[in-house]
Amino acid sequence: MKLLIVSTSTVHGKPYLSYLDKELPCFFTEGKNILFIPFARPGGITWDEYTEVATKKFSALGYTMRGIHTFASQKEAIDWANGVFTGGGNTFVLLKTIYDSGLFELLNEAVRNGLPYMGTSAGCNLTGISVCTTNDMPIVYPPSFKSFGWVPFNINPHYLDPDPSSKHMGETRETRIKEFHKFNKQMVIGLREGSWIYVDGEKIELKGELSARIFNASKEPFEIQSGDLTPLLKG
Amino acid sequence: MKLLIVSTSTVHGKPYLSYLDKELPCFFTEGKNILFIPFARPGGITWDEYTEVATKKFSALGYTMRGIHTFASQKEAIDWANGVFTGGGNTFVLLKTIYDSGLFELLNEAVRNGLPYMGTSAGCNLTGISVCTTNDMPIVYPPSFKSFGWVPFNINPHYLDPDPSSKHMGETRETRIKEFHKFNKQMVIGLREGSWIYVDGEKIELKGELSARIFNASKEPFEIQSGDLTPLLKG
Repeated sequence: MKLLIVSTSTVHGKPYLSYLDKELPCFFTEGKNILFIPFARPGGITWDEYTEVATKKFSALGYTMRGIHTFASQKEAIDWANGVFTGGGNTFVLLKTIYDSGLFELLNEAVRNGLPYMGTSAGCNLTGISVCTTNDMPIVYPPSFKSFGWVPFNINPHYLDPDPSSKHMGETRETRIKEFHKFNKQMVIGLREGSWIYVDGEKIELKGELSARIFNASKEPFEIQSGDLTPLLKG
Repeated sequence: MKLLIVSTSTVHGKPYLSYLDKELPCFFTEGKNILFIPFARPGGITWDEYTEVATKKFSALGYTMRGIHTFASQKEAIDWANGVFTGGGNTFVLLKTIYDSGLFELLNEAVRNGLPYMGTSAGCNLTGISVCTTNDMPIVYPPSFKSFGWVPFNINPHYLDPDPSSKHMGETRETRIKEFHKFNKQMVIGLREGSWIYVDGEKIELKGELSARIFNASKEPFEIQSGDLTPLLKG
């Protein structure tokens, strides 16, 4: 499998996806046709509106992008694609639409057979075992919280460190993930904005300038630096 | 129905529930037996540990508190109770346990027949139409997002205003609730920490020192001050 698991599409103060300008051409190398999955609908925008945003960026990088909803069938869309990009938005809306539209099995098979997949935010949550570590509001009820499980852990995108000056009594991200581990066993990678994970077959690598925070059910959380994550997954 | 819908159990810098020291004795007036529902397990603590925390507070106010899990049956527990308090924690864990344990119908009937119900945070989410406006992480999968619908709207507890200085790219609370309204019609009350809603039959009142933020599917959000909410619900 070939995956780009990206915490956020946009870092503060920079244009959409621009911090990945060097990474994207190195990732999508199998051809120019990139299929966009707009189902997460950030801010509730339509599939067409969202596809336009992503297409503008990918066109500038020399790719041909089409939204999956513009094909006669999802199978035709997958057959056309040399790569897939799933944009962020609401994870529950995204996952429910993937299940309800029948895309789950089709996309799962294609990616497991080598179709490169990039997901930002909600789109990156789907690469893990479940969406149970999303930060999103559960505005619709999907038929399951199970996601693709292409990597043997869960992602927490937009990972935020506790703010010691905060007077807000809502749970910190760390508390939430610790609660997750009372009910679930898999490792969680807290991926800060500006970080991403690159997977190519057996190779799995943390990229970007920031460290990531690793949560296990039976250990104290700890930081890992950019680089090869294979030892972590074996250990 | 008689409800106390409370945004948070604890406000910054004050002991557990202490800001409600005047309100609680005016609310639980039908008798001294208060049933505690510890299913939300904040921080993953056990039902016993959580019941101990709440009991300490309610004992100091002169009540007799017992956890629902300490009775031979849930029916016996409900029959014993002069009032119910559901503590906060994780909304998904709370709702799933209520469904799985068979408590949903029993509690629903008792509260609709007049048993006073107080809920903080996750416990307050249950009074609305659905839990789709919780802030919690979906760490377990409940059989439905439908909650009791004792009030004709949804609650967003721990409501937080956008922070204009933030560099974080995750959605603001307002953005999340606007996304909710792309898929759901009911009004959402953003209840700030330190605010609560008191319901007694037809009477419905916002209490506490802060205003609340009202979100409707087809209007711009606006603020309401403490006081009678009946005109809002009719309008």
